[in-house]
Amino acid sequence: MLSVDEVWAVIDREVLALPSARVPLEQVCGRRLAENICADSDLPAFSRSAIDGYALPAGSQPGRYRLVGESKPGGPAPLAPRQGEAVKVFTGSALPESGIELVMVEDTTLVGDEVIVDVSSSAKPVRARASQAKAGEVLLSGGSLIGPGTIALLATVGASAPRVSPAVKVAHLSTGSELVSVSQNPGLGFIRDSNTPLLAALLAEAGADLSFHARVSERVDDAVAGLEGIEADLFLISGGASVGQYDGTAEILQRLGFVIHSAKVKSRPGKPLIFATRGSQVAFGLPGNPLSHFVCFHLFVRRALDRLTGLLPRKMIAVLLAGQRPEPDLRETWWPAKIRAEAGCLLADPLPWRDSSDLTGLPQANALLRIGSRRTNGLVEAFLFGHLEP
Amino acid sequence: MLSVDEVWAVIDREVLALPSARVPLEQVCGRRLAENICADSDLPAFSRSAIDGYALPAGSQPGRYRLVGESKPGGPAPLAPRQGEAVKVFTGSALPESGIELVMVEDTTLVGDEVIVDVSSSAKPVRARASQAKAGEVLLSGGSLIGPGTIALLATVGASAPRVSPAVKVAHLSTGSELVSVSQNPGLGFIRDSNTPLLAALLAEAGADLSFHARVSERVDDAVAGLEGIEADLFLISGGASVGQYDGTAEILQRLGFVIHSAKVKSRPGKPLIFATRGSQVAFGLPGNPLSHFVCFHLFVRRALDRLTGLLPRKMIAVLLAGQRPEPDLRETWWPAKIRAEAGCLLADPLPWRDSSDLTGLPQANALLRIGSRRTNGLVEAFLFGHLEP
Repeated sequence: MLSVDEVWAVIDREVLALPSARVPLEQVCGRRLAENICADSDLPAFSRSAIDGYALPAGSQPGRYRLVGESKPGGPAPLAPRQGEAVKVFTGSALPESGIELVMVEDTTLVGDEVIVDVSSSAKPVRARASQAKAGEVLLSGGSLIGPGTIALLATVGASAPRVSPAVKVAHLSTGSELVSVSQNPGLGFIRDSNTPLLAALLAEAGADLSFHARVSERVDDAVAGLEGIEADLFLISGGASVGQYDGTAEILQRLGFVIHSAKVKSRPGKPLIFATRGSQVAFGLPGNPLSHFVCFHLFVRRALDRLTGLLPRKMIAVLLAGQRPEPDLRETWWPAKIRAEAGCLLADPLPWRDSSDLTGLPQANALLRIGSRRTNGLVEAFLFGHLEP
Repeated sequence: MLSVDEVWAVIDREVLALPSARVPLEQVCGRRLAENICADSDLPAFSRSAIDGYALPAGSQPGRYRLVGESKPGGPAPLAPRQGEAVKVFTGSALPESGIELVMVEDTTLVGDEVIVDVSSSAKPVRARASQAKAGEVLLSGGSLIGPGTIALLATVGASAPRVSPAVKVAHLSTGSELVSVSQNPGLGFIRDSNTPLLAALLAEAGADLSFHARVSERVDDAVAGLEGIEADLFLISGGASVGQYDGTAEILQRLGFVIHSAKVKSRPGKPLIFATRGSQVAFGLPGNPLSHFVCFHLFVRRALDRLTGLLPRKMIAVLLAGQRPEPDLRETWWPAKIRAEAGCLLADPLPWRDSSDLTGLPQANALLRIGSRRTNGLVEAFLFGHLEP
């Protein structure tokens, strides 16, 4: 039985990044950038105005200036005004490269074609060419996660189809003849299949592409037939990784040609997790309980998804335990918790949790706390996966 | 000119929640739940086993038991074993309501039809009917945000189409004849339209539905024609909310029948923000600079989206300033920053930022710091919008 850290090391060793591809800018948010992005020209590419107002010769004093022209956004830069002259400008207007200063329209009065500059301290700097970056400068490094701010910068430099990591293609098989659909009324002995919508939501949140799903009985033959010929980067098999004769995930994976690297992990919940590979394809057998599913996803599946997309694995953060420390177990326990921000601190309240089939606290959870057997002066490690509020 | 807090109060007063609707479970992640969800039966609905092993009569000691049957997951509960008898069970098997205890298969040896129970401390509790919730108990309150954990609980109780807030329908108009598409090479005086992909990414992240986009010149007639007859809950107009004659967002909105509630806000960047309504429809005029767009989205548009979906507005958190305090300005400043977790603390490093057209630091930012003119013992307020890591 491997420790959680040992399973992570195995995942890091066995899971390789998928080849990157050029993808239209509209589809790259949440992906990993797979190339360095350089400024395609100076940033800004030309000196321009940050205000609506007037361009005057550099060093001008309050007084009267003759309006000799205007520079509209989208037009060429005007000639520099000569002594006693003003040129009307707008936010974004091109400006001469040097020899001018700006006054805001609020600090002026226009009488006919005469601009009266009222305030002595009104001179505003020009937004000079290359003041943010020079042409060719590296603005974004390969490997970084693309958020909305990155999208804006990619757009600015014309990276309309950057090279990014692909969305991971996932196939999911639910096993278990006790499962019925969410819309069905389960008879005695049956339960609704909550793992399928749970995994779909977790995969969508992680930017993965759930391209195949089926539900089969727990018979190994059915499961093998269900997954044979399916193309995916990542296979997830729900339910059945315990020792019983109706639990055959390991056998399913072996018959499909996967090599099992770990079949048991010192973790509560999640002990019967299976991790396997077949060439560059990755598979997990996830214990059937929904909370085990949730925990195994955040601890192990998410790590494999990150590796497949070439991201560094998400890191745990250290938080302060606010509520009662949950009872430690022989196995390291991952406890659902709500982490909140208070006066610069990260406080974690463990949520009520009865057993690994108990989901009632999960909607409030934004983190999993790592509760080991050793105490560490009030700090615990946590995976934060939800929004942080006060 | 209103303060940021005053604009928030106006948004909270003017923006009403859209009517909710029943939506298939696969589409509700990230939405707001608009009804209370109750347990449709006891949770669990029947007493069941959490292990693979054997059911013995309650109070049994180590010893030899005769295997008299088995209970498979998905089948009915077996009769309780009598003294000296054992029934094979699997994880999820239905169990008699009382009178039994469980032993794990690992703690037994099976010889023919005889189960030898080895360990005296091996008795495991049954996962009893209603131990998590009773039928009819409220499990989820209307108003809560639906995450993957919520999805699992909704699925468990058969809420296959819960009542949720709708996705907000958004129309976006970019104005400005200096703009070219991201894939075009801008000539002198022109810039690429980075606001359109930026807003698309921010709206997607917020779960909104960008159903219309167009780019027009800054002529008021073109913009009015571009938006006339468009159906949306939220209208966003990019560029042009300054005082210049080429900046006519206020006029566009008024000609379209909107009432302007705020046309200037004491905020850097973002001063020329416009907030308007037309009946239940909401509109913002966003200053053309990408960073202003980014800040105004997180400060104001996001708040209106939350109100439209009936969510409480996102709250700021208090963080510790790690780097140099940015230079305060006359206006309250929202400074891009990277917040990280360190030993239970939230530390904020302000990022380099030259002016409101400067995007180069934004890919690293996961927060905006509120830098006012008053110092407050090292703590600053922040909107955290990105992932938190060590």
